[in-house]
Amino acid sequence: MREVAIIGIGQTPVDEHWDKSLKELAAEAILAALTDAGRDSADALFIGNMLSGMLSKQENLGVLISDWIGLPGMEAVKVEAACGSGAAAFRAGLMAVSSEEVDSALVIGVEKMTESLPIETTEALATAADADYESAQGLSFVAINALVMQLYLHTYGWKHTDFAPFSINAHANALHNPYARLHETITEKDYINARMIAEPINLLDASPTGDGAAAVLLVPADSVTAQDHRIIIKGSSSATDSIAIHSRKDPLWLSAAVKSARKAYDQAGVGPEDIDFFELHDAFSIMSVLSLEACGFAERGQGPRLGLDGDISINGRIPITTRGGLKARGHPVGATGMYQIVEAVQQLRGEAAPTQVENSRIGLTQNIGGSGATIITHILTSD
Amino acid sequence: MREVAIIGIGQTPVDEHWDKSLKELAAEAILAALTDAGRDSADALFIGNMLSGMLSKQENLGVLISDWIGLPGMEAVKVEAACGSGAAAFRAGLMAVSSEEVDSALVIGVEKMTESLPIETTEALATAADADYESAQGLSFVAINALVMQLYLHTYGWKHTDFAPFSINAHANALHNPYARLHETITEKDYINARMIAEPINLLDASPTGDGAAAVLLVPADSVTAQDHRIIIKGSSSATDSIAIHSRKDPLWLSAAVKSARKAYDQAGVGPEDIDFFELHDAFSIMSVLSLEACGFAERGQGPRLGLDGDISINGRIPITTRGGLKARGHPVGATGMYQIVEAVQQLRGEAAPTQVENSRIGLTQNIGGSGATIITHILTSD
Repeated sequence: MREVAIIGIGQTPVDEHWDKSLKELAAEAILAALTDAGRDSADALFIGNMLSGMLSKQENLGVLISDWIGLPGMEAVKVEAACGSGAAAFRAGLMAVSSEEVDSALVIGVEKMTESLPIETTEALATAADADYESAQGLSFVAINALVMQLYLHTYGWKHTDFAPFSINAHANALHNPYARLHETITEKDYINARMIAEPINLLDASPTGDGAAAVLLVPADSVTAQDHRIIIKGSSSATDSIAIHSRKDPLWLSAAVKSARKAYDQAGVGPEDIDFFELHDAFSIMSVLSLEACGFAERGQGPRLGLDGDISINGRIPITTRGGLKARGHPVGATGMYQIVEAVQQLRGEAAPTQVENSRIGLTQNIGGSGATIITHILTSD
Repeated sequence: MREVAIIGIGQTPVDEHWDKSLKELAAEAILAALTDAGRDSADALFIGNMLSGMLSKQENLGVLISDWIGLPGMEAVKVEAACGSGAAAFRAGLMAVSSEEVDSALVIGVEKMTESLPIETTEALATAADADYESAQGLSFVAINALVMQLYLHTYGWKHTDFAPFSINAHANALHNPYARLHETITEKDYINARMIAEPINLLDASPTGDGAAAVLLVPADSVTAQDHRIIIKGSSSATDSIAIHSRKDPLWLSAAVKSARKAYDQAGVGPEDIDFFELHDAFSIMSVLSLEACGFAERGQGPRLGLDGDISINGRIPITTRGGLKARGHPVGATGMYQIVEAVQQLRGEAAPTQVENSRIGLTQNIGGSGATIITHILTSD
């Protein structure tokens, strides 16, 4: 088992890319990552994607993309774990390099959602939930999260307004990220007055989807010397919970996040107190709160306090969604986990001004597939 | 990098399983593999599957299946490479154990095709081809293979009848495999008179689809001692070609098979002459011929000779499709690569009577996604 480093990153803006197909978005991010690393090829390609078969009528993405980027012949495969596909592909690439099966691996998360009808997208996203016991009842993804948020407000006595800081913080950070989907400051008043989607989740609790791709190049850590271009993967762990939330003893406790984060902390030899920033999976504001609690940054039921106290801001105790998060950078589902990794690398390289976290050395990323069902945690360090 | 062994296998019959859902088929194969290995759990689950999103409206299979088999919490992910998904998942599981990220991995290939309309299945299968340049022209998968076979007959001067031995051999071997889809002996006359599908491919050149699941349990080789339950993975390699056949310099040469097989031979320190049997990807009879040529068992353009001379039969020089192959065991697409692995283990354990290859020590398996686009080769040995 050898240590693995990220030596190149690339991304496209998250947007409605009417002029670019899935493979063109993928190529843009991959070529940027190769250029950033000063390389022109890699041994293997791991692709995180959830929806291409359903929305683009295209599977076999491995060969589609390796062919399109001018590297036919290379090993290439797609990895799927719903909205956790990006980090799942990253972990597959990590294991490929770490096992010595390959000496370099490109990992990309890519998703193309714009060209489909909204109803098609909603149905396709619902395949992340239990088809028999959730989707078949008409339970969409936002509805599942609304049930969880409702239960949280009821159980712990918070008001909906107490969640405003998560959305406000994400938008504030995205303002300075040229790759973000949304570039608009929002206020608490905007949050309170936002259109209701599925009570209590309103438009500003929910992340926007979009088209996008984000990529990295992985190589053995001992093959690189230049300190400024070497980010090390110190922790990597993936865990699951039941797919349907009704099967869980406590729907407000992300047990897969607890399990996955604890293992990653152990591997890296660190704890929550050592983490300089946390790119979490804020598909809905309730998920920010549950993730912070599961990963040891707040007591159970006390997550909203971190927002109200300013702890989550760039200069706070545990900065989150430093480049906008899913809420404002956007959530091109299978690509999201790779955006988180790319953004963590930007922070660790010191390339995230003006939302740079000072003295940033240890970053935590966490990507979720389904409603807390598949959770993949990574810890990256700058040395 | 540590050596990895297969210590348990399990499979369901390939059939129209109207009474079993995808997760029930998966559970049946997984529990059989665990029982065979004398274990009751594993650290991780890798799932080869192509069509679940499109045909069963269900993605996030990792968590669906880990939950259903009563092992929620374990790492679980889906790997997709069209009809090569099974072997792609196997290779991902191999890398997970070999990298020391996990100490045991279940790998399963599973596909559920029966409950969909034939047109839905055909459209879903077409997502393995290039959506822009092949599928959009109405080119189905059988049509692509028909073009290749037509070109082969024209280029090398063989007659359609010369391909009969591949189909006859597969059916003869499947007769003794209780898990096979088809249990009927066919003659050359049957082959000649079979209904035409896409000239020159007739019904007996093509493999039947179906529902099915096949699974193995992987552990570090040095953790097992009992010789009779330890099959070692000596070679593993994955390579790609262009996705569309029109982009290839020579559409009759499976360059990804050449690349992938050569690397696997090198890893195992063997050559074609050392291989005791070959579980190849005979989705169409033309693919048997191209695979045999690409892997070094026949000169270019001379593949049909191996069938006509009896070399491919159980007692021949290079027995193929020893348990029926895709042609007669059946081709539940994302599961097929794992059926090949399970069948190779049966041969290497000496559990394949009456189609047991005598003194079987080294087996070759090759799984293909798309029309020769993604090709994954494994070499397994009994010691």
